[in-house]
Amino acid sequence: MSRPSVPAMDAQLGVEHKVLDHGFVRLIDYMGDEAAIVQAARVSYGAGTKTPSDDRSLIRYLIRHRHSSPLEMCEIKLHVKLPIFTARQWIRHRTANVNEISARYSILDREFYVPALADIAEQSKNNKQGRGLAMPYHEASHLQEAFIKQGEGAYKVYHYLLNEDLDDLGKPLDDERPMLARELARCNLTLGHYTQWYWKIDLHNLLHFLSLRLDPHAQLEIRRYADVIWGMVRGWVPTVAEAFEDYRLRAVTFSRQEQVVLQRMLSEMLDPEIAAVASEAKMSKREIEEFKSKIEKIQEA
Amino acid sequence: MSRPSVPAMDAQLGVEHKVLDHGFVRLIDYMGDEAAIVQAARVSYGAGTKTPSDDRSLIRYLIRHRHSSPLEMCEIKLHVKLPIFTARQWIRHRTANVNEISARYSILDREFYVPALADIAEQSKNNKQGRGLAMPYHEASHLQEAFIKQGEGAYKVYHYLLNEDLDDLGKPLDDERPMLARELARCNLTLGHYTQWYWKIDLHNLLHFLSLRLDPHAQLEIRRYADVIWGMVRGWVPTVAEAFEDYRLRAVTFSRQEQVVLQRMLSEMLDPEIAAVASEAKMSKREIEEFKSKIEKIQEA
Amino acid sequence: MSRPSVPAMDAQLGVEHKVLDHGFVRLIDYMGDEAAIVQAARVSYGAGTKTPSDDRSLIRYLIRHRHSSPLEMCEIKLHVKLPIFTARQWIRHRTANVNEISARYSILDREFYVPALADIAEQSKNNKQGRGLAMPYHEASHLQEAFIKQGEGAYKVYHYLLNEDLDDLGKPLDDERPMLARELARCNLTLGHYTQWYWKIDLHNLLHFLSLRLDPHAQLEIRRYADVIWGMVRGWVPTVAEAFEDYRLRAVTFSRQEQVVLQRMLSEMLDPEIAAVASEAKMSKREIEEFKSKIEKIQEA
Amino acid sequence: MSRPSVPAMDAQLGVEHKVLDHGFVRLIDYMGDEAAIVQAARVSYGAGTKTPSDDRSLIRYLIRHRHSSPLEMCEIKLHVKLPIFTARQWIRHRTANVNEISARYSILDREFYVPALADIAEQSKNNKQGRGLAMPYHEASHLQEAFIKQGEGAYKVYHYLLNEDLDDLGKPLDDERPMLARELARCNLTLGHYTQWYWKIDLHNLLHFLSLRLDPHAQLEIRRYADVIWGMVRGWVPTVAEAFEDYRLRAVTFSRQEQVVLQRMLSEMLDPEIAAVASEAKMSKREIEEFKSKIEKIQEA
Repeated sequence: MSRPSVPAMDAQLGVEHKVLDHGFVRLIDYMGDEAAIVQAARVSYGAGTKTPSDDRSLIRYLIRHRHSSPLEMCEIKLHVKLPIFTARQWIRHRTANVNEISARYSILDREFYVPALADIAEQSKNNKQGRGLAMPYHEASHLQEAFIKQGEGAYKVYHYLLNEDLDDLGKPLDDERPMLARELARCNLTLGHYTQWYWKIDLHNLLHFLSLRLDPHAQLEIRRYADVIWGMVRGWVPTVAEAFEDYRLRAVTFSRQEQVVLQRMLSEMLDPEIAAVASEAKMSKREIEEFKSKIEKIQEA
Repeated sequence: MSRPSVPAMDAQLGVEHKVLDHGFVRLIDYMGDEAAIVQAARVSYGAGTKTPSDDRSLIRYLIRHRHSSPLEMCEIKLHVKLPIFTARQWIRHRTANVNEISARYSILDREFYVPALADIAEQSKNNKQGRGLAMPYHEASHLQEAFIKQGEGAYKVYHYLLNEDLDDLGKPLDDERPMLARELARCNLTLGHYTQWYWKIDLHNLLHFLSLRLDPHAQLEIRRYADVIWGMVRGWVPTVAEAFEDYRLRAVTFSRQEQVVLQRMLSEMLDPEIAAVASEAKMSKREIEEFKSKIEKIQEA
Repeated sequence: MSRPSVPAMDAQLGVEHKVLDHGFVRLIDYMGDEAAIVQAARVSYGAGTKTPSDDRSLIRYLIRHRHSSPLEMCEIKLHVKLPIFTARQWIRHRTANVNEISARYSILDREFYVPALADIAEQSKNNKQGRGLAMPYHEASHLQEAFIKQGEGAYKVYHYLLNEDLDDLGKPLDDERPMLARELARCNLTLGHYTQWYWKIDLHNLLHFLSLRLDPHAQLEIRRYADVIWGMVRGWVPTVAEAFEDYRLRAVTFSRQEQVVLQRMLSEMLDPEIAAVASEAKMSKREIEEFKSKIEKIQEA
Repeated sequence: MSRPSVPAMDAQLGVEHKVLDHGFVRLIDYMGDEAAIVQAARVSYGAGTKTPSDDRSLIRYLIRHRHSSPLEMCEIKLHVKLPIFTARQWIRHRTANVNEISARYSILDREFYVPALADIAEQSKNNKQGRGLAMPYHEASHLQEAFIKQGEGAYKVYHYLLNEDLDDLGKPLDDERPMLARELARCNLTLGHYTQWYWKIDLHNLLHFLSLRLDPHAQLEIRRYADVIWGMVRGWVPTVAEAFEDYRLRAVTFSRQEQVVLQRMLSEMLDPEIAAVASEAKMSKREIEEFKSKIEKIQEA
């Protein structure tokens, strides 16, 4: 017996995917594959019972009904370099393991985030937390310069306070001045400065992270990281990824009130006709049954 | 300044709600109210910004968009007595604090679960994990006797092995025989035997527990407990409970494939007509906008 | 029946404890008291067994043997204002609930951390992550000015990029220039800028937080917050706090190897003499037994 | 680049380690090795600083100072078969992922725990939750029979209520009688009945599990499982295991009060003499410094 492995993931090990201007995502390790999810799910059924459904149907069933524990049987470990303001959003996902570089021990590199011209946008008028229209070239260019100047200035102050020779750590640059404690000097760096960490999470919690961070309401910068990780997930567990897209990312949910309206909009369509369209859309028998019961629920709303 | 309190909850403190034949749920303590949720949510907006929306709209918005962290600001503590097989389902909810009676220290009482006649049902044919048809009176009655006999028999063996005088603990009942360690004797009790615990959980995780355990697919016995707790929640945070019912318990979700079918079933209904029905259903302007974008999403499916 | 309350805590509700130059800690709510801990611990023993030990002994026993679940039955909620670099250390404690002000929605105030002259110190020579000697007045004063200039400069850039009238939010200050999205403008603030949050945690996890953050190796700034919270804990659950000090904060632990050395250093002291000294030090019989078995363990090392 | 692997663990994959009469532990998968722990720990130091210490010293430092996050970078997945009363203790460790066989879906096998004669012992007199003296052969043998009879009887009742042909599931054994729902029939099984699960946990939380479950106060049955897992850990991460033994399993901790007594017992031993004994015990310079500061702490107690 050997550990389950996924060629698409093995090919990714150590590969650096660039994100933003100085950031990256690198796959360090992973555990489990789709067979491992199925294996864990099937332990529930025991040897005795007949469970005819094939693996693909089982995985789709798990995702559709939010049975999350078999997904927790897979794990991924990434090395990520990212701006501090992005790290602060990311760390809110508590069910993960993290080792971050410490600016109490280390001197951070001279790398800070400068948004590309195309990403510099106005405050949205109708969405308090969003980005609105992109700016004309000359405006964006002018503001971008302010980012550069501010990032460079902050690093200069930081380095001045440290007064440490970057080529010969522990030695002062200027013997006449004291070397400020690193843990204090760093206060003067900006939130756009880059940090890095090892981040490990199970597949269930990773999908939750992705559902929030792939969303158009997530800040553009963290979305860029989510996009790269989502690409990895599709290579790692393709059936899971497809089901996740069908039942979560591209699903729509109607509230009790909305169903009242929907009820009025639903034409009388006969059962065989529904079945025909549904099977064109590649829905299984079980899914067609589930669909009809949702329509009934709406018709009783 | 004093702690937020909720009269409906204060009236419940210590009150024993009977569940099943020997079980109960008792409210021990709680923390926070709807104002506390709003207060925590509003810290996000800061003093400076204008956030005109009233508290009710804000709470409904939080639930609709699954913004869970403000709900975590409320906490509830319950004393629960329940059969062990139910406790084993319950404990799977990991984000909670638990103190359970230990049968290594204590001698459990002679109380085991005997399902009421109306609750004794056949194995479901189409749902592998469910209960099917109720049984005719004489069959149910016959099986119920088997439960009683088995529960009594198990307690008799347990007590025999303990050989401990229940009126004078630490003394043997029969001086000629050894007293088996409690931690071993208990192996012979059944899964229907009652245990009890203090259980503390935040409101967000409690709602997640309820969404799974109020569901018709949950086992009847744990559902009875969920019903009682849901009753408390409605008294504690009524706006949250109402929104949770509208946006979660009574919502329907359509997959990408289902939307293809739904698309075909949607009649052409004009915007003013939609708005009229929607406002009859007490939807806010924001919700009507959100509804329309869901319909558009379907029309593009 | 009414909720357990603690007068010392009720008196603290809403009171702002100043920390650092602009920070604070305010008690918002709490749940449980020492009786609640004892109550939860006693559920383990059941009605049947005789447990003569008084509440104080029970609490000390729980802390001594790291029985943490009864401590989880108490909860505290704080409002904290703190510099971002401190928030980044604090958030690493994952078992807590947090609602933080969002600079995507809000415009942050013009408040940044400037260390007091006495707190400005050199990088430690022997401790890579620590602060060493304090600096002479004129040096400290010179560096302090750099902090002020950098903080003010950063806020000026931030405000320039926002181009938003702080007295009439949503309106530009300068009609000729675009208003940059808040979520981007904030990248230019420094790590010393203040943020704030509601933070809720159970007593067990709070004590773990304190054991790490009261420690002399913790960064001075977070220690100042820990000191204030530790003061609250002592008023809230004084017996727990005392035991925590005796068995955790002021305990010493010897490794297997250290015990070899210790063995050689232990004089032959007779049992009655040990008992005499131990009871002078207010150790209970049970503790004296535990102590002797530790000494025996060392003598066999 | 390829995933880190450990030959000692690869050799264990799928191997069934018998525990108790019907139980087992099987390694299903693992992630990470000691190099992965070191790699995660070193990210804290960054490229710039000089960190001369070798990997072994670094690992020992992490364990000694309870720096747990690098240990969280390793993960293990086990398949375990165990009695239900043991599963109920085990599941209290919340930071793990679990997929357990469900007796709502499946019919459990006819396997229940019968303690070996040598493990049948009296209730301890001085430890409320422990096992005391072993019993004489004929007494143990008599009680053992009661376990067998009770286990067999319970399974007979269970099977009678199910009324399901174990060779042709879904068909009644006796056509005249109804087939009780599995979720109800199982209430009549005993706590000694075997269940099984997939269990996944990170190394930090596994060590915490082991520190509690290898302890002589843990119930014998769960200790047997902990012993097997501890054997795996020693093959997987030998330096971690050794350090964990030195600094946790075999450490002794003295309270503030105990230090008062210890102070009196400490002979005057000169520094060079201490250093000599310490280096015989293979303590590093850093450890000797730490030891001396503990002794000083005691001398000031």
